[in-house]
Amino acid sequence: MSDVADVLYVNARLATLVDGYGVIEDGAVAVRDGRIAWVGQRAGAPRAAAIHDCDGRWLTPGLVDCHTHIVYAGNRSDEWEARLNGSSYEDIARAGGGIMSTVRATRAASEDDLLRASLPRIRALLAEGVTTLEIKSGYGLDVDSEAKMLRVARRVGELLPVTVHTTFLGAHALPPEYAGRAEAYVEMLCAEMLPALAAQGLVDAVDAFCERIGFSHDQTARVFDAARRLGLPVKLHAEQLSDQQGAALVARYGGLSADHLEWLSPEGVAAMAQAGTVAVLLPGAYYFLRETRMPPLAALREAGVPLAVATDCNPGTSPMTSLLLAMNMACTLWRLTPLEALRGVTVHAARALGLVDAGTLEAGKRADFALWDIARPADLAYAIGANPCRGVVHAGVWRDRLS
Amino acid sequence: MSDVADVLYVNARLATLVDGYGVIEDGAVAVRDGRIAWVGQRAGAPRAAAIHDCDGRWLTPGLVDCHTHIVYAGNRSDEWEARLNGSSYEDIARAGGGIMSTVRATRAASEDDLLRASLPRIRALLAEGVTTLEIKSGYGLDVDSEAKMLRVARRVGELLPVTVHTTFLGAHALPPEYAGRAEAYVEMLCAEMLPALAAQGLVDAVDAFCERIGFSHDQTARVFDAARRLGLPVKLHAEQLSDQQGAALVARYGGLSADHLEWLSPEGVAAMAQAGTVAVLLPGAYYFLRETRMPPLAALREAGVPLAVATDCNPGTSPMTSLLLAMNMACTLWRLTPLEALRGVTVHAARALGLVDAGTLEAGKRADFALWDIARPADLAYAIGANPCRGVVHAGVWRDRLS
Ligand SMILES: [Zn+2]
Ligand SMILES: [Zn+2]
Repeated sequence: MSDVADVLYVNARLATLVDGYGVIEDGAVAVRDGRIAWVGQRAGAPRAAAIHDCDGRWLTPGLVDCHTHIVYAGNRSDEWEARLNGSSYEDIARAGGGIMSTVRATRAASEDDLLRASLPRIRALLAEGVTTLEIKSGYGLDVDSEAKMLRVARRVGELLPVTVHTTFLGAHALPPEYAGRAEAYVEMLCAEMLPALAAQGLVDAVDAFCERIGFSHDQTARVFDAARRLGLPVKLHAEQLSDQQGAALVARYGGLSADHLEWLSPEGVAAMAQAGTVAVLLPGAYYFLRETRMPPLAALREAGVPLAVATDCNPGTSPMTSLLLAMNMACTLWRLTPLEALRGVTVHAARALGLVDAGTLEAGKRADFALWDIARPADLAYAIGANPCRGVVHAGVWRDRLS
Repeated sequence: MSDVADVLYVNARLATLVDGYGVIEDGAVAVRDGRIAWVGQRAGAPRAAAIHDCDGRWLTPGLVDCHTHIVYAGNRSDEWEARLNGSSYEDIARAGGGIMSTVRATRAASEDDLLRASLPRIRALLAEGVTTLEIKSGYGLDVDSEAKMLRVARRVGELLPVTVHTTFLGAHALPPEYAGRAEAYVEMLCAEMLPALAAQGLVDAVDAFCERIGFSHDQTARVFDAARRLGLPVKLHAEQLSDQQGAALVARYGGLSADHLEWLSPEGVAAMAQAGTVAVLLPGAYYFLRETRMPPLAALREAGVPLAVATDCNPGTSPMTSLLLAMNMACTLWRLTPLEALRGVTVHAARALGLVDAGTLEAGKRADFALWDIARPADLAYAIGANPCRGVVHAGVWRDRLS
């Protein structure tokens, strides 16, 4: 290993995100072996085999979308349209709509078709500077179909310049063959499904949907016990539609994150702060469902809970493939500051995935960063529907922006 | 003129928008001399010199963004950030922020710099299938600066594959040199500014901001009188923040459109219906300002007022460069149907500009259309942050999607 860097990115305005924005003007980043070797003002930069001139553009850590259901088959714009034309949720469920329509389509799709259906959505995220992506299962709901979803997620990470983290979400909904037998499904999930998928190396973390219309507090605890036996970290869809004390539950298991949190209680805030569990905010679902109750942001800030922001990309409640827009919604709808929004898709989103080598521009981290045509970092959250990304570096390799 | 078309677009699923979606499966569109020569099922298509295979994709009229302030200099993400960090509107105004900061930057910019600053925003719109674009002046507020803005708008139409309609909005705000002398400004605007700009061929229509914080009902009427003397059509920013009876006023002048309309009264609805004035809905501003009062959509529908949807792209209240997202917001926030949203950015948006040759796929219209990777037309409004546009035809010329 030589002291000479592979590439030195120069003439950049850095937002390192190390402390606040962590701005370094006339900055440079040295990359060696796919990692950041050095960050600072150009004057002190090490020698490098190649120089990449950033033309004075802003350079930030690659963005991290830490909560998505982006791998699925089928399309539910038809039921959305039916609802806007006056159909009730009941009408739509009777006609085979809702999450079960996505489960049917995902089960029926071949692995290649599932990949093909998902790639345009993923490419849209990546075109905006995303270099790390969480992908959940949860539309298979049987061993083979969940395995298929997770294999597709892994293949995404091989095909595209992005690091993929997989999350097993078998406890997303009750599959039709277990109708009325939720306990038996959870039993099977813990005893068979999760161990089988973990044994195949497909699971980086375990999640559940803890809600009246999902799984109970007790059932969720059993899923977390199964995860713990396998040494897998946990996270939770918590307090989206009601207070199930899910945040306190996932905190008790040392969970990475509690996500949604519109109905989070003061006790939940305290438990998350104590455990170091990240609050993952999903304003896209709040927007798309026209919710009116916001997460308790003042309490979360006061308690020092890190705030992440993600797309929640899914066909039912957040058909969103723009992390920049999720940042704007967090600021517009919930009054996050642009700095909070940017930390929410970098340093705190990385932490929500348990990552220690992403989310900031610092020596030793993976060389993941994005180059932007902006006047200042606040522009990333301010503009609605623009994509100022000029390109990304993923694991040390430069790519022009995907189109 | 021969009977043989220049190009025949085949193997397309057409949403002609002629009546509802106006779907034609296995459709074809013949183009001759930049116009649509024929539309129908392929079986009946005329002969053509060239064939363009659409691979089974959907083809719609090119989109029309009928309300934008997209030409401006400067950047106001800093004051937006300050506000989210707790600064009041008063603090920001004292620090030189608000619309006057855009006026200062726009006045100071050279014509080339103003164009350069605006092009990325315009390219973002065009990348989503926009082929007709309205651009307002209103950040110059003196003859030379308003002329510069409108010349830039005209140059956009020469440089890019888009038809530009210019609107003179001198009555946008009171320039600082007329502080306390609104009557004198309106007098000068009517007697000098508008006639001079019209004489240079820079004005396709005339608009005003009729609001307590803008211009009064009487002042607006004088601006409209000046427009009438010059034979120019009018439109109006009406009833956004309060009911000034602006919609009834613009209807009395046979106006093309009344825009915003959150505070529109039943009398205003009736006047618009009577005059055939289009209601231009601007959900981006409603979203960005966190407004809660919606336009009276049920009354507008019942009265048969055509509903258009636009971005209102501007740095202060709607920094939005995605017409597809404006469609989603119209559906999500205001419960328009996806069909209403699509008609709102095609046939009704064209009507809001007084255009008879755009907005539908019909013989005789300009050959402006967009090709989409979607399963059905509702996808255009459903997806948040995706851009499924594969390319556009503008005035008969095919272009791959801008990136
Ligand atoms: Zn989710
Ligand atoms: Zn406007």
